[in-house]
Amino acid sequence: MPKISRVDVRLFDVPLAEVLTDAKHGDHTHFELVTATVTLEDGREGTGYTYTGGKGGRAIAAMIDHDLAPFLTGKPADDVEALYDAMQWHVHYVARGGIASFAISAVDIALWDLRGKQTGRPLWKMAGAAGDRCRAYAGGIDLNFPLPKLLDSIKGYLDRGFDGVKIKIGQPTLAEDVARIKAVRELIGPDVTFMVDANYSMEEDQAIEAAHAFAPYDITWFEEPIIPDNYKGYGRIAEATGMPLAMGENLHTIHEFEHAVAEAGLSYLQPDASNCGGITGWLQVAELGRAHGIPVCSHGMQELHVSLVSGQGGGWIEVHSFPIDTYTTRPLVVEDHRAVAPDTPGTGVVFDWDKLHAAHEDMHR
Amino acid sequence: MPKISRVDVRLFDVPLAEVLTDAKHGDHTHFELVTATVTLEDGREGTGYTYTGGKGGRAIAAMIDHDLAPFLTGKPADDVEALYDAMQWHVHYVARGGIASFAISAVDIALWDLRGKQTGRPLWKMAGAAGDRCRAYAGGIDLNFPLPKLLDSIKGYLDRGFDGVKIKIGQPTLAEDVARIKAVRELIGPDVTFMVDANYSMEEDQAIEAAHAFAPYDITWFEEPIIPDNYKGYGRIAEATGMPLAMGENLHTIHEFEHAVAEAGLSYLQPDASNCGGITGWLQVAELGRAHGIPVCSHGMQELHVSLVSGQGGGWIEVHSFPIDTYTTRPLVVEDHRAVAPDTPGTGVVFDWDKLHAAHEDMHR
Ligand SMILES: [Mg+2]
Ligand SMILES: [Mg+2]
Repeated sequence: MPKISRVDVRLFDVPLAEVLTDAKHGDHTHFELVTATVTLEDGREGTGYTYTGGKGGRAIAAMIDHDLAPFLTGKPADDVEALYDAMQWHVHYVARGGIASFAISAVDIALWDLRGKQTGRPLWKMAGAAGDRCRAYAGGIDLNFPLPKLLDSIKGYLDRGFDGVKIKIGQPTLAEDVARIKAVRELIGPDVTFMVDANYSMEEDQAIEAAHAFAPYDITWFEEPIIPDNYKGYGRIAEATGMPLAMGENLHTIHEFEHAVAEAGLSYLQPDASNCGGITGWLQVAELGRAHGIPVCSHGMQELHVSLVSGQGGGWIEVHSFPIDTYTTRPLVVEDHRAVAPDTPGTGVVFDWDKLHAAHEDMHR
Repeated sequence: MPKISRVDVRLFDVPLAEVLTDAKHGDHTHFELVTATVTLEDGREGTGYTYTGGKGGRAIAAMIDHDLAPFLTGKPADDVEALYDAMQWHVHYVARGGIASFAISAVDIALWDLRGKQTGRPLWKMAGAAGDRCRAYAGGIDLNFPLPKLLDSIKGYLDRGFDGVKIKIGQPTLAEDVARIKAVRELIGPDVTFMVDANYSMEEDQAIEAAHAFAPYDITWFEEPIIPDNYKGYGRIAEATGMPLAMGENLHTIHEFEHAVAEAGLSYLQPDASNCGGITGWLQVAELGRAHGIPVCSHGMQELHVSLVSGQGGGWIEVHSFPIDTYTTRPLVVEDHRAVAPDTPGTGVVFDWDKLHAAHEDMHR
């Protein structure tokens, strides 16, 4: 395979249609999209990306520009896993998670895009080939929605063809959270899958009390009750309540996932290829999950994860409220309550640059 | 206290006098120094900093410029611990270690510099006041030095007044490492303290074999035998060999230190205020160490850590081969084999900007 001739970074501040709020990150008014396009000496291109809730995008772009791009230039692009390891070691002293995980993710996804185009394979085939579709739930960032608006939003998800929904919890009192959960379950009936997400806003005892209070409403998982670092605390909550727990969006290295799998008593893993090392990192987590019998799901960027979760089989993708897919040539497709992976070679995520540039000034450079 | 009016970042690529090599990061030709100067509305200034082995500096500068500076501007500067927590949460989604820990460290140190100047106290008094001096050892980045040069370098440390030395290990064979250790011990005699540092280049079994082989040479600690993420592996090495272990330069959050203290069987903790959250983060680690009876030492930037380790008492500072102190108005002072903390209000680390600018172009902006 020809060598890498350059890596081009673009950064977009994408405004959200409305202010979205969760229990720990407060108000979101926009998100950051950082794209990395790897060009080979023969002119072929692959594009990857990552995103943030609005902070860190410039640091990610700076790391790709100044640390990763010079390191990759001149190297053959085909041994993606070796390049992944080499990038991790190249920046190791300032890495082991954080910004480096996001930066490496964007570049790794670009390399997989090239690999798929080169071999004529769509991502779901490269990522396990279990199938080309998967279960999908709509996840709201809706903590600040008054109840009528929350229920309207849930109705909207069902109308769009989803048979799974997730809401944010973390109201001032547990009673308020329970009242919202009860109202949502009454609205959706017994057959729709229902998850809740605390964005680690609780203490351990509080989470145990909450899990008991949520139990009557058939909650498929309780996501991030406590801070992601407290693996043993997760284990104690799972043990004390029997409530299925999920986490992963805040774990950025395979070692963090190893600790979580060993100690946190998780029922679902939710790696995000935008922040756990791209497709290479995500597949490492999926393999770890399989070895421990834990289904691999996802967080965010549904337009990419649809291929990964489908390829692995068994998990759910989150359809996140950051609508990256609407800036691509193929927004997420849902048929018969299943999300359908693209069949085009590469990642199948092709940005509509005109739409991105038109709506959102490129702040980078 | 007046509010913060701005945060100014400078970045320097500082060349090393010669190429320095360790077992995991390869060759170092220069290091990056990132400074953050916090200016209050009344014109008072405090300066903090961080450094890297040559990668990540631009990302650190970008995070301070784009994420931390706007967040801090307009806030009162006096409640440093509250600002520290607020910064951690502000960037949490892209943080929990990595670049964010370096960026927050630089700013936090600047806030402590202001606090010391405001209250007229030197850092060693603010940081526990146990004393104004501490033990110090010279740590070489000398894996590539042939034996005669290694021994010359060690002699140089003794001539400069140090009674503790550390060398890098990780030669192609264990026999070569042992031969170097033996030669150094013979040179320095029985009374000089001697440590070794593998920069996590070993596997667990290999480290156990090495620890047994090093035992005859009175090694005070074996630093980072294996990757920092493998806390339980450290515990097994300590258990199997009785060799005192040390780590910390690659732990960037209090949670990572909590895991290490709980599982890694460490005899010494080595937090680095440039990458574990500045002075606030370093003092949190020191408190954790005290609660578990583990002495707190340091990694790098001796000109600052001399005050922290002296203030806490009992530990050693590493006198690192990145000579940041030679670009300050008071390079490290050693008297009677002890490093002496500055007595000036603030951190006591005052950069010689002319010297920095003259020697090393400011690449930032
Ligand atoms: Mg979540
Ligand atoms: Mg070391």
